[in-house]
Amino acid sequence: MYFTPPLAKLIEEFQRFPGVGPKSAQRMAFYVLGMSSESVKGFAHALLDAKERVKNCSICFHLSAENPCEICTNDRRDKTIMCVVAESRDVIALERSREYKGSYHVLTGLISPLDGKGPDQLSIRELLNRIVADGVTEAILAINPTIEGDVTVLYLTRIIKPLGCKISRIAFGLPVGADLEYADDVTLARAMEGRREI
Amino acid sequence: MYFTPPLAKLIEEFQRFPGVGPKSAQRMAFYVLGMSSESVKGFAHALLDAKERVKNCSICFHLSAENPCEICTNDRRDKTIMCVVAESRDVIALERSREYKGSYHVLTGLISPLDGKGPDQLSIRELLNRIVADGVTEAILAINPTIEGDVTVLYLTRIIKPLGCKISRIAFGLPVGADLEYADDVTLARAMEGRREI
Repeated sequence: MYFTPPLAKLIEEFQRFPGVGPKSAQRMAFYVLGMSSESVKGFAHALLDAKERVKNCSICFHLSAENPCEICTNDRRDKTIMCVVAESRDVIALERSREYKGSYHVLTGLISPLDGKGPDQLSIRELLNRIVADGVTEAILAINPTIEGDVTVLYLTRIIKPLGCKISRIAFGLPVGADLEYADDVTLARAMEGRREI
Repeated sequence: MYFTPPLAKLIEEFQRFPGVGPKSAQRMAFYVLGMSSESVKGFAHALLDAKERVKNCSICFHLSAENPCEICTNDRRDKTIMCVVAESRDVIALERSREYKGSYHVLTGLISPLDGKGPDQLSIRELLNRIVADGVTEAILAINPTIEGDVTVLYLTRIIKPLGCKISRIAFGLPVGADLEYADDVTLARAMEGRREI
């Protein structure tokens, strides 16, 4: 027994987070002890508050403290273009680029038979309903080029096509600022495949 | 505004921790949203509990939920040998080696004029009182070989020597498992300086 019990417990709690090993957990726990009581209370409150108030939007399933979320209630967003993503954090990443002005739909995961995750566990029924109700003309699939991603894209294409909605998938290729010489084979193959006439 | 306010607040809180950048903070905040409500409550409770209950031991200044701490109240520890360290985490590191069976004294810092930290801000008076009261025969200074560490060691040596107590400092040299070829100059110089006849 090296750590006094409440400290050991706190280190254990920090260690459950992704990317936090025993050393970082220990450093974070000691940091908590060095914080003022008010700061620790503020942190604890922020945790409970976020967990209690942030829920999936009932329309697009994006995580938000509002329901419907800030994006769904924004009248300046084009409802006829819909970007379909796996997770809420993908919405954040796309919003950060300030490029896209349409709506979103968060699938809350990808089809993954190995993890027992089928289309029924995703928000696909709601997606189809929205495409029809909002008169969506283009569905942009912003889904990672992994096995689960590709399977999900295939599945979605098959069921969205009959609705008469255009489907596209974001481009994969050389990241901006990267060097051709150091790109991996799969990325280069995708970049060649996705070449465009200029 | 990419994140819904309670989520933005939580990310901001995580980002204050040492070694946690914006990306890790975001990942940790999303992880919280994915935890069960009970788990989040448990984590918040662990934070408040650790902050409230873990204090500096009134004898040795080690962080503990008990006062006096588990080490000070352990009768099997040799009170006549005292290991002097800068921080509570150094006690943990030394305890982990299972080598040392004496008592500890945590200075709660090092002398650092640049940070406005003089001997008065450290638990040095308490250290001297303990050396006299417990009849300490050897004070082992387990203090890092930094400028602040060296200054503190010099200061402590000057005021502990008159009490008739033997003083030693832990050895600095090549870490076990390391390769001579890759050791830095200062470490090698310290290792040569600290050589022992075999």
